[in-house]
Amino acid sequence: MKKNVLIIGAGGVAQVVAHKCAQNNDVLGDIHVASRTVEKCREIVASVQEKKSLKVKGVIEAHALDAMDVAATKALIGRTDARIVINVGSPFVNMSVLSACIETGAAYIDTAIHEDPLKICENAPWYANYEWKRQEDCKKAGVTAILGAGFDPGVVNAYAKLAVDDYFDRVDSIDIIDVNAGSHGRYFATNFDPEINFREFTGRVMTWQDREWKTNKMFEVRQDWDLPVVGKSPTYLTGHDEIHSLSRHLDVPTIRFWMGFGDHYINVFTVLKNLGLLSEQPIKTAEGQEVVPLKVVKAVLPDPSSLAPDYTGKTCIGDLVKGVKDGKQREIFIYNIADHKQAYEEVGSQGISYTAGVPAVAAAMLIASGEWDVKTMANVEELPPRPFLDLLGRIGLPTRIREGENDQPLA
Amino acid sequence: MKKNVLIIGAGGVAQVVAHKCAQNNDVLGDIHVASRTVEKCREIVASVQEKKSLKVKGVIEAHALDAMDVAATKALIGRTDARIVINVGSPFVNMSVLSACIETGAAYIDTAIHEDPLKICENAPWYANYEWKRQEDCKKAGVTAILGAGFDPGVVNAYAKLAVDDYFDRVDSIDIIDVNAGSHGRYFATNFDPEINFREFTGRVMTWQDREWKTNKMFEVRQDWDLPVVGKSPTYLTGHDEIHSLSRHLDVPTIRFWMGFGDHYINVFTVLKNLGLLSEQPIKTAEGQEVVPLKVVKAVLPDPSSLAPDYTGKTCIGDLVKGVKDGKQREIFIYNIADHKQAYEEVGSQGISYTAGVPAVAAAMLIASGEWDVKTMANVEELPPRPFLDLLGRIGLPTRIREGENDQPLA
Repeated sequence: MKKNVLIIGAGGVAQVVAHKCAQNNDVLGDIHVASRTVEKCREIVASVQEKKSLKVKGVIEAHALDAMDVAATKALIGRTDARIVINVGSPFVNMSVLSACIETGAAYIDTAIHEDPLKICENAPWYANYEWKRQEDCKKAGVTAILGAGFDPGVVNAYAKLAVDDYFDRVDSIDIIDVNAGSHGRYFATNFDPEINFREFTGRVMTWQDREWKTNKMFEVRQDWDLPVVGKSPTYLTGHDEIHSLSRHLDVPTIRFWMGFGDHYINVFTVLKNLGLLSEQPIKTAEGQEVVPLKVVKAVLPDPSSLAPDYTGKTCIGDLVKGVKDGKQREIFIYNIADHKQAYEEVGSQGISYTAGVPAVAAAMLIASGEWDVKTMANVEELPPRPFLDLLGRIGLPTRIREGENDQPLA
Repeated sequence: MKKNVLIIGAGGVAQVVAHKCAQNNDVLGDIHVASRTVEKCREIVASVQEKKSLKVKGVIEAHALDAMDVAATKALIGRTDARIVINVGSPFVNMSVLSACIETGAAYIDTAIHEDPLKICENAPWYANYEWKRQEDCKKAGVTAILGAGFDPGVVNAYAKLAVDDYFDRVDSIDIIDVNAGSHGRYFATNFDPEINFREFTGRVMTWQDREWKTNKMFEVRQDWDLPVVGKSPTYLTGHDEIHSLSRHLDVPTIRFWMGFGDHYINVFTVLKNLGLLSEQPIKTAEGQEVVPLKVVKAVLPDPSSLAPDYTGKTCIGDLVKGVKDGKQREIFIYNIADHKQAYEEVGSQGISYTAGVPAVAAAMLIASGEWDVKTMANVEELPPRPFLDLLGRIGLPTRIREGENDQPLA
């Protein structure tokens, strides 16, 4: 049984992960939080202690770490005897942290694809550009590496697998829908790292349609949905990590991702993008200073974790699955509703961080219990969904299923 | 008689100034263009030669100069034997260039107030913060320094003085109106240095109303006008240099400035301002780099001089003057219409640069001829307006006067 967790990162999601690990430290053992800025790790540790989140008496410690530095990461894994690493740092560090895990035998969990700072929207499928290249190495080393174990990617992958396994004979399409109907009261803010948030939308929109990659522009295709709790919601076709693994692992011809956006977000985004301020490529000022515009935009925007205290409202994220069961057309929506204020009261973060962080801890607990300790690299849809969704139901992210007039918790 | 001109700056306005000086080099003598980036000066020289703008055989040369460096500027004035310096560089260099003129005895001309890079919208009247502090030194040294000799400030100050002198017994109000009804075909661009352009609108809006400074916010007060040629035009109350000197020099209780803006400009400006991207104060990126957001915005926007080839349409800038003449209420609009395409064909710049640059050359010619060689510091409204407006009529910026149904050239 693996235990002792090293959390990489110190943003809003890391805060959630630390609290949830603490709430389950009887299973997970010692908790270590590491990032470039050790003060931010210390704040997380202080918050866990203040909220008395540790279930049983145990260790929680802050560390300074440059996670791009494989040797330093290996050394910290060694020093803390961490057998599970939850990487919720910037997506630029995935490959270096994964290397450190492979070389030390620690299990690896992340919540988003690796990215190269200077490349946006690489070739499909995205996982093949970086993570999957190390699949053989994981297998050889017997290292469990679970990719994309947040909400989306993550829980929505498990929803997809559940639908394919238990609810359909044939699935024709999966539409993943992510709507944040919350309100933070600021002029403009992103719900997680602005740099990463904007990068999602500045490239091409790649989706899997009729077993082929189809390319659109951002905000080109709009679809309005009538969703549980949050009601009528405008969304736009968006490229997203999980389409890239689901299209490989599930026999489903059409997999799309729809992100909810209000007109104000689109206006601000459009202005910034058209001006060139969302570019990840350095430019030169008149004074000769080299600057990456996107990093400047990030610096002027509110820190997403600062939004939490005032955040109200709910998120609705789920999979609309269409197909055939027992010779009849079927359509179900598997989803979760999360509440910003409730998340803040429990772990000091807003709902978006909550939905991303809790599943990573559930994955860690399933590695600790052995159920997901598969000793190779896997995306979430390659793993049994039931234990994951059952556990999530117990630790804060219950699943519901709507079919026609019928809307009830996952049995 | 003073001659030989040193032009400081190499942007769109400097391009106009160089061409107009060349067209009048029988009066002005040698022409020297100096800026930090000597390549840009060389391009201007090449353009003057290509268009064969030199009226008589003569010198036109490019120089590298950091105009913040008083000693270097003095040395260049000495080397070129320039007796007139036309400063159309960044407004950050006004005071250093003025110092160099005072110490070498050269006449000084600029087209906008001095600015401190780190201060926006200082106390009123703005000229008192920097330029007017050196008035005594100019007088002592017998140096002619003409402040704000572009179009606005500049020509509109002469319009105001003309109205007070020749058209009214009492002036109650002057509304300076600046509308650019041209189109550059880009998503967004400013018509001159974006840094300077935005700085105009990010501070408080100060206007002179009933002999007091009144403060508003930008885009708070809108006024639509029906103007000659350009027609119905939405404008907004704006702070502007000339209000600060006119309120001191003319006995007029209300002096306001109205700048024309379209909804798209206001939207882009509002987004950038609300996000903090128009700030002149340095911020720190997550990587620890110190950056001034406004300089990054400037770097991603089109170079204003690059707009010229595609610019079409016209500008209308003028003074709406109300008051009493011979016991009766009177209202006149003194104005100029400039054409972007025509400006480009003549001097390779768009209309905004043209209207700013030509008056500075007219001022230089009046210094050369002695009519404006007043051997002290003066704002344009302190000088006789007729020779200036007559000369402008001959070199490309004719004045018209509209009164009721009557609209005719300045007699």
